[in-house]
Order: sequence, then structure tokens, then C-alpha cells
Amino acid sequence: MSVKFAVLGHGVVGSGVVELFYKNKKSIEKRAGTEMDIKYILDLRDFPDSPYKDKFTKDFNDILNDDEVTSVAECMGGVEPAFTFVKACLEKGKSVSTSNKELVAEKGDILLQTAKEHNCNFFFEASVGGAIPIIRPLHRCLAANDITKVAGILNGTTNFILTKMYNDNMPFADALKLAQELGYAEKDPTADIEGHDACRKICIISSLVYGKHVYPKSVYTKGITQVELCDVEAADVLGYAIKLVASVTKLDNGKILPCVMPTLVSYDNIMAGVNDVFNAVLVYGDGVDQTMFYGRGAGKLPTASAVLGDVIETAKGTGTVLSQTWESASDDSFIENVDSYTSRWYFRVPADTEVDLGGTYSHDDGISYVTDEEMTFAQAKAKADEIGALAFMPVLE
Amino acid sequence: MSVKFAVLGHGVVGSGVVELFYKNKKSIEKRAGTEMDIKYILDLRDFPDSPYKDKFTKDFNDILNDDEVTSVAECMGGVEPAFTFVKACLEKGKSVSTSNKELVAEKGDILLQTAKEHNCNFFFEASVGGAIPIIRPLHRCLAANDITKVAGILNGTTNFILTKMYNDNMPFADALKLAQELGYAEKDPTADIEGHDACRKICIISSLVYGKHVYPKSVYTKGITQVELCDVEAADVLGYAIKLVASVTKLDNGKILPCVMPTLVSYDNIMAGVNDVFNAVLVYGDGVDQTMFYGRGAGKLPTASAVLGDVIETAKGTGTVLSQTWESASDDSFIENVDSYTSRWYFRVPADTEVDLGGTYSHDDGISYVTDEEMTFAQAKAKADEIGALAFMPVLE
Repeated sequence: MSVKFAVLGHGVVGSGVVELFYKNKKSIEKRAGTEMDIKYILDLRDFPDSPYKDKFTKDFNDILNDDEVTSVAECMGGVEPAFTFVKACLEKGKSVSTSNKELVAEKGDILLQTAKEHNCNFFFEASVGGAIPIIRPLHRCLAANDITKVAGILNGTTNFILTKMYNDNMPFADALKLAQELGYAEKDPTADIEGHDACRKICIISSLVYGKHVYPKSVYTKGITQVELCDVEAADVLGYAIKLVASVTKLDNGKILPCVMPTLVSYDNIMAGVNDVFNAVLVYGDGVDQTMFYGRGAGKLPTASAVLGDVIETAKGTGTVLSQTWESASDDSFIENVDSYTSRWYFRVPADTEVDLGGTYSHDDGISYVTDEEMTFAQAKAKADEIGALAFMPVLE
Repeated sequence: MSVKFAVLGHGVVGSGVVELFYKNKKSIEKRAGTEMDIKYILDLRDFPDSPYKDKFTKDFNDILNDDEVTSVAECMGGVEPAFTFVKACLEKGKSVSTSNKELVAEKGDILLQTAKEHNCNFFFEASVGGAIPIIRPLHRCLAANDITKVAGILNGTTNFILTKMYNDNMPFADALKLAQELGYAEKDPTADIEGHDACRKICIISSLVYGKHVYPKSVYTKGITQVELCDVEAADVLGYAIKLVASVTKLDNGKILPCVMPTLVSYDNIMAGVNDVFNAVLVYGDGVDQTMFYGRGAGKLPTASAVLGDVIETAKGTGTVLSQTWESASDDSFIENVDSYTSRWYFRVPADTEVDLGGTYSHDDGISYVTDEEMTFAQAKAKADEIGALAFMPVLE
């Protein structure tokens, strides 16, 4: 028997899936325990020079109506038409593996439910952390843990920019421009630098870990556009690296608190050493204490590798629906407001402020310090207003 | 239906499995998709004060002959009687999950074969990297990759000692003594400090990744007893941290080269920041580029967490044997001799040696430098003899 699958979209990720599959076909088939082949590649464009040109189709129905195709890799991106296509595949019992974080963050609950009803699988390892295996380890290997917090560097573009600011004293605008020149940032970089991309990924992680769908609109999200060079330098002197941290914390009241904020990460935390376009996810559990997953969060082959890992899993599948799923949420009353987010805080205040604290650092752009004690976001914000702070950010020890 | 399992051994890991299971029973059962309970705990000792004292037995046959027990957690350690017990369980179709790296490194091929023949599973996530999910991600999520190298810090005791030498200028002997006082090192620390423990773990990883059983006796293993404080300090000046690195490299000639050696890890490598008793495994693949798994490599609850993750997996199992397996090896002709190990090298030579190199560092105990070019272990050793080197170690960029 041979498993036939289709690849939806022949952009960066989709073409990477095709390339990596044929490069490692033999070992992939060995891992899958079955012969495998790509039967269709869906794209509206023509690829007359592709060695696989006979596999291309512009008509999704070719794939949908071919019963021989039992598995589909969705690499189109965006909510539509991806959602319609994926849902139709699942309803036909075809398992789908996707790299599309927008789709999972907005429609994951519906698609997981559809897969369940039709005894197939909706997999999305590639949607978070690119090549880093995180979804499956979170779900399976950590199954025995009460997971108290997940914190991650989930966006490679912003991490590249912050690394450039740190290593090369490069101002934000220049670092962004360089990221665009190197192809790490898009022409319109909003989704990256404003934190929306990281937000979608922490939504997926939150939904998976805590069992209810978390929508991006419920998550407080602050990007890195207001992070200044003087803050990066001051943080370094105080023993921290500034990273865009997306996190979700389980609170004592049973609610969860997902959020995305530029954060001072202590040099004692392994995550402070995650640089350039690399991503990392740090998981805190009662059994494991802490465990981190690290790797390239984006890019053609890394993401393709994660998609293919899922496709292989579907090929081995016995039709069994695995319990990697979560419920729809009727409201967001299980999500705590960011006002309750508790940590120590970094403040930068004007140079003429009276600050009576050890561990302060005076520099050309003010005085920077980290509070000795924890306070909530609401308290920190009130304090920032009161003392006329020029910047304030939470701290991750 | 309720899945009943047994725990063999009530030492550190075994008691952790029992404790963590009852602490998180509800969420574990949700993840497993079935009710679960521990029916037996095997130990020769009495535990009259245990809340689970009615579950204890001293007779392995109680477990073996009880058909209701479908899954077994082996937490005894050592090759025997663990091997006999585990094999007997598998032959009865009972899946086994183990934390016993000695057992897997010496007998993994036989036990995997037995499991296959009896349509059950032999899982060993906890045998490498404690709480770090590495076996399953390596096997599944990275299935699409051609894995070119795996390098890890796989022994927490030696990493703690090296961290103390680095952070606190503590000589090796004092750091070892402290590790023993803190319970990180055993009274007889040979297996840790001579690299045998790391060797077993890289054997397991090598076997899994490359498909043939690698025995510890085929692996060149050098521990940290000869690492001196002056080398740790010199490495730091040159931009490296000394770590006990266990690695396996796939060579162009198709052979693999597993080995364990104290190694200078570049500060540009995320692994240089892995400190104290933490472990990490860095995987290099053609798709993922590099991805790292990090966490507590040992300890009661971290290891128990990994064992339980496997037990949950067996509970979900449909009896299907997953292809997480490898073949026996009739000889070790597929393993390359360490003489071919290629990297840049660190040398420390007597102070009166003429060294014509940039990047040298002169100190009280000689002159330290890293070669500009790569050479093989055999070449480095010959050179070390020729120049009367006081120390030489490979470099991991």
C-alpha cells in the first residue's frame, strides 16, 4: 500500500515540503512504515519548470474528490480559503497537517471537532515554533504534568531585531530595515513587530495546554516598537536581555492569563541566550520543573520539516483520532485580565527623579531599575503614571 | 474500562511515579482518554507507612500473572533483574515504560524486538534526559529529517561540577564533594565523572537515530577528571565553556561516530548556557538546521514525569506497535573509530613553548589556544605529543 498526499500551496513552506519529501523519501517511508507519494500540488500559479509539474492542479476539487488522497498538507496561510478547504478535507475523512497559525488560532476548535467527527486528524505542529517539536511534546510527553506556565520567544523577526539592538547597538528602525533586507521581515511588518504573530502562537499553546479555545482578541498584546536602545543597554547592565515574551500562566483562581509583552529575561534564564531568528518555548510543570524547546521558528525547510513530521504521523495512523484537541469557548470568562499579571518590573524614569533604591543604573536617557518586589500590571501601570516613567516592562527570572 | 498498571521498584524514581500519578490522576486520565490506576508496586522492602501499602508486593509473579495489568513502569535500575522482568512482561503482551538507561543501552534491541513480536510497546523516554522529551520528538517530529549530528549534555552531575568550576573557581575535587553533599553525585561517582552514564545515553540516541544498536563498549568515552580549573578559565577567555559533550556524527562514508569528551562549547552555541544539573540535547538536521531540548536530566519528579508520559501513551495504545525501534548489530563495523573525529582543537602547552598564533592566552599554567583549522582526533593527539601539550580538547562551534 502507498499513502498519497496532497500539498495545498506552493509558496515558501509548500515548496519546502515537496523538496524535503523527495530529498528524504526513503527514510521518511521507513519512519512511516509505508510507501508514500505526493499526488497533487495545489496552486493557482504555473510552475512549468518544476520537476513535479504533472502533479500541479488549480482545482481543489481534484484533491477533495480523489479518495486515494488520505492526507493533506495545508501551506497556504491566512484564514480563507484555507479554512473552507481544510474543513472540506476533514469532512471527507482526509487528515490535514498545517503550518497556518492564523487558521489554528482562529478556527482550531472547529477543525479539531470536525476531525474528531470524521475519525481523522488535524495536526498543527508547524504552526508554532516552526521546526521546534513543541505541540506534540507538550501534549504527549508532558501529559503527566500540571503545567503552571508556558513562556516563549515565538517570533523570529522581533527576536532578530532585539538581538541586533543588543549586539550591535543598532536602533530599532535600522534593525527592522535590516530584517526586511534579509527577508526575515515582510514589507508590512505589523504582524511581527506589534506582536500579533506571537499572540496567535500563544493562543494555540494556551488552547492546547488548558483545553479551551483562546482567541487572539482575548489576549493583551504589546509589540516591540516602543523598546528603545537605552532600555536594551540598561537591561544588560542590570543582568537581563529584553525579549518579546509570549506567555500563559495558570492562576490560583483557576483562570489563565495569556499575554504578549517585551520582557526583561534574567541572564540566569536559559531563554536569555536565545538569539537571532531562533525561537524557544519554556514549559513550567510540577513534574518537569522547567524544560525548554529551541530551534528555528520559521524558514522554508524548518517549517516544512515540521509539516512533514505531521504528514508521516497521519500516514501511520490507524484512523484513530488522538486526543490532541480542545473545546470551543462560549465566552472568555476563563481568561484573566492582564491587570492581574504579576512580576517584578523594570522602570526607566527621568534623570531628575529621586530614586531610593540599590541596583539603579543612571545613564543619558534616565535612571533604570528593577523593583525588588512583585506587583501586578495594574499596580505597575499606576506607579509608572505616578512617577512619570519613560518605560516599564515585566521581568522573567 | 480502567487501565491497571504496575510500578517495579519504589526507590527515587518509582516512588516519584506513584506520587505524581495520584497528584495529577484526573488530568492524566483525561489525557489518556481512560480511567487508570496503579494495581501493584514491586519492592523487596516494606513500606508500612505508605498510603498505598495495600498495593505493595514482593513477588514479581503477582504482576506477571495478573492479566488485568496491561502496562508496567520499570524503575529498578541495573541490567538484572530488570531485564528478566521486563522481557517476561513484554512476552505476556504487557507494555513496559522504563527510566533504566543501563537496560536500554545494553539490551534495548532485544527488548524492542520482543515488544514487536508480542504487539506491545517498550518505551524509554525517561532513560535519556530525564524530564526532557527527547526520544519521542527525535523519533516522530524529526522523522522528515536527515539527522547529521546529535550533541548533548547528558549528565547532570558532571555539568554541575563544571558549572561550579566555572562560576565559583572551585577545583574539581571540591566541586565533586559538593555534588555528593547535595545528593547530585553518588558515593562512588565513577559512572558520572568518567562519562559512562553519558555514554549509555548517547548509545540510546545513536541506536534510535541511526537504526542499529550501539553498545557502550564501542564508544570512546573520556570523563572530566582531567579537566583543570586553568582550562576552564582559559576557555572562558577564549570564548568557550567546557562541557562534557556526548555526540554522534553521521560521516560521509555512511558510518557513525559516537563519543563522549570534555569539549569547548562556543558562547555562540546555546548549549554553552546550559548550567548546573540541567541537560540539553542539540539535534542537527537538514530540515530543522538545529533544534535543542533542555531540562532537568534527573531527579525524582522530572524522571517520574517522563515515565508517566510513556505509561499514558501505552494506556491510549490500541495494541499497535509503533516503529520506535532499531535492529541488533552483528558487529560494530558501522561505527567509526574516534581517531576520525574532526573539529578545531584546544591545546594548553607549557609556558616556554613557542606558539605563533593569534588568539593565544598566556596564564600561570601555560599557554592556551584554539587551532584555526580543523584536524582529526588522531592528528590532534599526535600534535599534542609532539608539542608536549598539557591538555587538548575538541571544540564545538
